[in-house]
Amino acid sequence: MSVREYCSIKWFDHVWITSVTHIMGSFRFFLSLQVLLLSVFLLNPTAAHSHTKYGGDGVQPLSKIQIHRAVYELHENASVTANPVLLGTKVMYHINKLVTFTISHNLFIMKNMQVLQGGDSQWVTVEVGTPKPSDDDWLAVFSPANFNSSTCTPNYDDIYAPCIGTAPIKYRFANESNSAYAKTGKASLKFLLINQREDFSFALFSGGLSNPKVVAVSNVISFANPKAPLYPRLALGKHWDEMTVTWTSGYNIDEAVPFVEWGIKGESQTRSPAGTLTFTRESMCGPPARTVGWRDPGFIHTSFLKDLWPNSLYTYKLGHRLSNSSYIWSKSYSFKSSPYPGQDSLQHVVIFGDMGKAEQDRSNEYADYQPGSLMTRDQLVKDLDEIDIVFHIGDMAYSNGYISQWDQFTSQVEPIASTVPYMIASGNHERDVPGTGSFYNTNDSGGECGVLAETMFYVPAENRAKFWYSADYGMFHFCIADSEHDWREGSEQYKFIEKCLASADRQKQPWLIFAAHRVLGYSSSYWNDGSFGEPMARENLQKLWQKYKVDIAFFGHVHNYERTCPIYQNQCVNSETSHYSGTVNGTIHVVVGGGGSHLAGFGPVQTSWSLFKDSDFGFTKLTAFNHTSLLLEYKKSSDGKVYDSFTISRNYRDVLACVHDGCEPTTLAT
Amino acid sequence: MSVREYCSIKWFDHVWITSVTHIMGSFRFFLSLQVLLLSVFLLNPTAAHSHTKYGGDGVQPLSKIQIHRAVYELHENASVTANPVLLGTKVMYHINKLVTFTISHNLFIMKNMQVLQGGDSQWVTVEVGTPKPSDDDWLAVFSPANFNSSTCTPNYDDIYAPCIGTAPIKYRFANESNSAYAKTGKASLKFLLINQREDFSFALFSGGLSNPKVVAVSNVISFANPKAPLYPRLALGKHWDEMTVTWTSGYNIDEAVPFVEWGIKGESQTRSPAGTLTFTRESMCGPPARTVGWRDPGFIHTSFLKDLWPNSLYTYKLGHRLSNSSYIWSKSYSFKSSPYPGQDSLQHVVIFGDMGKAEQDRSNEYADYQPGSLMTRDQLVKDLDEIDIVFHIGDMAYSNGYISQWDQFTSQVEPIASTVPYMIASGNHERDVPGTGSFYNTNDSGGECGVLAETMFYVPAENRAKFWYSADYGMFHFCIADSEHDWREGSEQYKFIEKCLASADRQKQPWLIFAAHRVLGYSSSYWNDGSFGEPMARENLQKLWQKYKVDIAFFGHVHNYERTCPIYQNQCVNSETSHYSGTVNGTIHVVVGGGGSHLAGFGPVQTSWSLFKDSDFGFTKLTAFNHTSLLLEYKKSSDGKVYDSFTISRNYRDVLACVHDGCEPTTLAT
Repeated sequence: MSVREYCSIKWFDHVWITSVTHIMGSFRFFLSLQVLLLSVFLLNPTAAHSHTKYGGDGVQPLSKIQIHRAVYELHENASVTANPVLLGTKVMYHINKLVTFTISHNLFIMKNMQVLQGGDSQWVTVEVGTPKPSDDDWLAVFSPANFNSSTCTPNYDDIYAPCIGTAPIKYRFANESNSAYAKTGKASLKFLLINQREDFSFALFSGGLSNPKVVAVSNVISFANPKAPLYPRLALGKHWDEMTVTWTSGYNIDEAVPFVEWGIKGESQTRSPAGTLTFTRESMCGPPARTVGWRDPGFIHTSFLKDLWPNSLYTYKLGHRLSNSSYIWSKSYSFKSSPYPGQDSLQHVVIFGDMGKAEQDRSNEYADYQPGSLMTRDQLVKDLDEIDIVFHIGDMAYSNGYISQWDQFTSQVEPIASTVPYMIASGNHERDVPGTGSFYNTNDSGGECGVLAETMFYVPAENRAKFWYSADYGMFHFCIADSEHDWREGSEQYKFIEKCLASADRQKQPWLIFAAHRVLGYSSSYWNDGSFGEPMARENLQKLWQKYKVDIAFFGHVHNYERTCPIYQNQCVNSETSHYSGTVNGTIHVVVGGGGSHLAGFGPVQTSWSLFKDSDFGFTKLTAFNHTSLLLEYKKSSDGKVYDSFTISRNYRDVLACVHDGCEPTTLAT
Repeated sequence: MSVREYCSIKWFDHVWITSVTHIMGSFRFFLSLQVLLLSVFLLNPTAAHSHTKYGGDGVQPLSKIQIHRAVYELHENASVTANPVLLGTKVMYHINKLVTFTISHNLFIMKNMQVLQGGDSQWVTVEVGTPKPSDDDWLAVFSPANFNSSTCTPNYDDIYAPCIGTAPIKYRFANESNSAYAKTGKASLKFLLINQREDFSFALFSGGLSNPKVVAVSNVISFANPKAPLYPRLALGKHWDEMTVTWTSGYNIDEAVPFVEWGIKGESQTRSPAGTLTFTRESMCGPPARTVGWRDPGFIHTSFLKDLWPNSLYTYKLGHRLSNSSYIWSKSYSFKSSPYPGQDSLQHVVIFGDMGKAEQDRSNEYADYQPGSLMTRDQLVKDLDEIDIVFHIGDMAYSNGYISQWDQFTSQVEPIASTVPYMIASGNHERDVPGTGSFYNTNDSGGECGVLAETMFYVPAENRAKFWYSADYGMFHFCIADSEHDWREGSEQYKFIEKCLASADRQKQPWLIFAAHRVLGYSSSYWNDGSFGEPMARENLQKLWQKYKVDIAFFGHVHNYERTCPIYQNQCVNSETSHYSGTVNGTIHVVVGGGGSHLAGFGPVQTSWSLFKDSDFGFTKLTAFNHTSLLLEYKKSSDGKVYDSFTISRNYRDVLACVHDGCEPTTLAT
C-alpha cells in the first residue's frame, strides 16, 4: 500500500497577519482503514529565528523537518513496535534531590526515595524493521497517537492550514542505536516518554528530514492515568507570605475540583482551591503555534497558599476531586516558605537565562540545540539544598511554537521548580510576534505571543500579559522587567519600574536587584562594537538604576557570562574589581545568558568596564549573609565550580549617601 | 376636634446650600393627647428633577404631596383600622426563584419552598370610614408610626425645617378599592408592608395631594422582630475569590455582633464577621433627604467571605449574636462563587440601568413613576438560573431623598441580589447635589449626595465615595466608571480608568467591558441632534477605549435601548451589523437605560452608527461561551424574549493586532 499526499504551502513570515487568509495552499487528506493517521504536513518556520548570529545552531530541531514535503509510503514489510504498551503502572520512585542510581538501564537522580504507584515518565523501547533502510531514516514520536483527527474538524477554517498534520513531539535517527542499521534495517531505540495527557505512536520516516516519507507507524501506547496532576512549579505570590503552586492536568473544572493539600511538615494539612486555565489554538498568534506546532495544553491550575509562616518547611500534594467523590493525587512535595521581608538570615538566590530544554534520551539533540540545559538543570538539582529561590530570566523552553515542548520543559525543571520558587521573566522566545504589540517585531516565539509562558508559569504581575513584577525575598527586593514590552520613559512599564525600585526599604531590603531578559544595560556581545545594549535602553533606564541605587542588574539573551564594574553613563565609578564597599554610586551589570542554549561569543573590542567574560554554560548565585554582606558567584554548569565572584560590603548609610544623580534635592530650610 | 396648622416655606432649590439658614419659614407644632402625630410638612422638590424631558412623569410620587400645606382636621367619626396588628408571626415561605402562586389574595413568586417562622413582608388590610368622603382622599403609610416625635428634638436646628413632619413611606387613594367610596365613605385597602425596623400607622387625608388634611390616624401595627437582619445583597470583593454580603438590621454593634455563617453547601459552615455602618440626617446634603425625606436607615452590615473555591455553591445566613448569647438568624441563602479569572466556562452577565422601584400593592403608582421596574425584576428572577452576575449601572431606587425607598428597593431586588453579585454604578439619582463636588449641578439625588448608594451597597472601590472600580469575573474584566465625578484627562478617575483597562490580561480575560451611568459615548436621545453624549466625554475617553480595545461600553441614564456599530471618532470602523469578527478596532456602545423607569424616546436624526433602537423596558445579557465567542442579547422585560443581539468571534491576536491609535510603539531593533 502506498499513498502519496502532497500539500504545497507558501508562507511569508513577516506579513502573515494581514495576508494570512489569502495565501493558503490547497490540501487534501487521506484516512487509511486503520486508525493510524499520516500525511503529516509541517510548516518550516526557519525564517522566524533571528538568533543564528549567536553562534551554534539556534534552530528548533522540530522545525528542521520539511514536513510540508511529507509523503505517505507505508511498506507492508516495515514495522515499528513499541513496548510497554501501558506506561506508568510499575512501582516508581519520587525523583527529588540528587542521588544517582540505575534501575534496569535507566538513570535516576534521587534523594529521599519515595515509593509510588505509577509514574510520570517511563522508558519505552521501539523496535524498527524495514526492508529499505537508510542512514537518514528517523523515528518520530507523535502524541496524540492519532495525530491527524485530533486536530481536524469538518469545517476547519483554512487559516489553520495545513489543516491535517501536527508536528511530532520528538524524534531520533534510526541508526543512533545501531550503526549497522543501514544494512540490517533493524534498530532498537529507547525513548523516555513523559505523561503528556495523550497516547503515543511512533512513525518511521525515510528520506531524511528534507523529503520525509512515512514508512510504518507503531501500535499505540499510553500512560495508565493520562490526566494525572503533574509538574508542579512554585512561584512567590503577590505577598511575601503567599506561595503559588501551578501544575498541569487533564481535568477541566467541570470534571474534577482541583486543589492543593498542604501544611507545615508533620502537622495537620489543609486544602486550598486552585484556579483552572486553558487556551485553544485560536489564542496563538501565528505559525507554527497556530498550525503544526499546536498541541492541546491540557489544564493549568494555580493554587494560592496563603498566610505562610516564615522559613518553615511545608509539604504539599496536588489533588483533584472527581464528581464521584474519589480523589486523584500527585506525589508529595515540599518547600521552605519565604523569610519575612528584611529578615536577617542566610539567603541564596540563583539567576540565569536562556536555559532551553534537552532530552535525556538524546532526542532532537543532533542539532546541539540546547546542549547545556540538562547540565545546568543537574547542577541546580545538586545544589538545591543551598538554593532558596530561582530566577529564570527569559527564554525558557525555546519551544518556538511547538507547544509539546512546554510539558517537556516543566518536566525538566520539576525537581527545582517543585521545591523552590521558580520565578521567570519573559523573553523574545516567549513573546515576540510581529504586529501583536511586542516591542520587537520578530516571530521569535513562533506564534506563541506570550500565551504559553503567561499561562504555564505564574508570576505575581498585575497583568500576566505584561510581564513585569516585583518580588520580596528576605533582604532582597527584585524588580523584574519585561524587555519585550515598551520600557521607555513615559510608558506604563517605566512607571512600574520606578515604583518598584522606589518601594524597596533599603534598610530592611538592602539588596536591590533589577532583571530583564534582553540586555538593557551592557554587554560585549560580538554583534556590536564595544558596548551592546538594546537601543534606547541605557538612555532611558540608567537614571532609575542610579537614582534608586540598584546593586546589580541581570540580563540574559546573550548566551554567555559577563560582568561589569559598577557603572553609570558608560563609565566605571569604582576602580575596585571584586570587593566592593562604601558608597553605592553605580550599578554592576551581569549578563547571565549561558543557562543552556547554544553559546555566544564576544566582540573583539576590549572595554574598561567589562571585568569578566566567559562563553560557557553557567549560572549566577547570590548569597546574602546579612544586611551588609553580599556575594555573587558565577558557576559553570559543567562542574558546578565558581569561576568568577565578587562581594559587596557596606552599611545602610552607604545607600543613603548622595551621589551624582542619586539623591533627591534638599531644601535650604533647617 | 379640628386643628389647623400651617407652615409657609419658600425654597430656592439651587441656592439652598448657601442661604438655607436664612430662608426658613416660621413653624409651630401641635401635639395631640393621643400618641398620633400629624402636621406633616413636606417640601416639594419638583424642581430637582431635570429628567421630565425623558417623557413619562419622572417625578418621585412622594414629592407630589404638597405636605407643606398639610393641616390637621381630625374628625371624631372618621376611623382607620389596620389588621393584623402584629406582623411576621405566621408561617412564611422563602421567596427565591420563580414559581407563582397565591395564598389568600396574595401573589407569591417562589421556588424551593422553605417554611420559616416569621417573615419580612406581610399584607395588611386597612379599613377606612369617614363621614365626609371624597375621590381625592388618600391613605398614607407612616413608619415610624409616631412619625413626628421620632424626628424632632427639643433644640432642633432650624436648618432641618420643617422640623416636625416626615414623609409617608407610601400611600394609595382611598377609592382604589371601592369606586363607591365617595358616596359610602367606606374603603378597605391592602398594603404590602416590609419590615423596615419601625412600627407603622395609617393616616387618612382629605383635600387631595395639594391641600392635605389629616382626618384620621390608625392604630399602630408592627413586625414581631423589627430588628431582624434583612435584604442581603451580594457583591464581588476586591479579589475574585471574595464575596461580600451586605444587609440591613436594627442592631448596632454594641447590641449584637453581626456575622455571616457560610460554607460550601453540604459541608461544615464557618463564621465571618461583618462591619457595621450607619449615618444620621447630618450626613445628608440637602432636601428632602435632610428634611421630610429623612428616615433612620438602621444599620448596614458587610461581611467579606474570603478564599472561595471557584464555581462552587455556597450557602449562607445572616446572624446577630445578642449580649445574652442568643442568636437572631435570617433565612438561608445560596450563591455560586466566581470562576477563576480567565477560566474557560459558560458565563452570563446581565447589565441594565435605571430600574427604579415599584410596589406590588400599587402604592404610589398613580404616577407611573417606575412602571417597568417590577417587570424587569420578575424577568431577572425568572432567568436567574442563567445569570451569574448583575450590573445595575446607576439610578437604582430613584428615592431622590426619600430614604424609606431604599429599604423597599433592597427588598425588591433581594431575590436577585441575594443570589448573584449585584454590582452597581453611581447615577445622578444617587449622587448629584449642587455644590457638593458632583460633576453635574443638579439635585437629582434629592440631597442624598451618594450616601445611600455608597452605604447600602458594597462596591470594590478604593474609596466608595468615588464610585469607580474594577471587577474580574472569569473571562470578563469590567471597568466601572462614575459619571457623576470628573472623568476628564488628568483627573483621578481618568488615571483609574486607564489603569483598569491596562490591567486586563486579554488572553485570559478577552472580554473587556466599560460601563458608566451617563452616556459618555453615543446615544440618539432626542434632546440633542444626532449623536448625544455628555459634553467632553467622547473627546476625553475614546482614546482609552481605543488604545485598550474595549469591546463594549454600556451606559444608562437615557431610558431606552440602543446599540452602535464598532465606532471610533464618530465613525463606524466596520460595516458588519451583527456578527463581528477579526481585528478589534473600535468599541460597540450600548445604551441600556430601560430597566424600569419612565421611558425616553429618540431624536429624529438617523445616524449611520445607530444600528438598533427600542424605547421599551429591557435589559442586556452577555454570554461568554469561551475565549473566542461572545453573545449580547437585548431582552424586553415584558416577555423576556430577545429583540436584538450580536456576536463577537475573534482570536487573541485580533486584540493584540495593531490598529489606528491602538498599539504601543515598537522599536526597529530585532
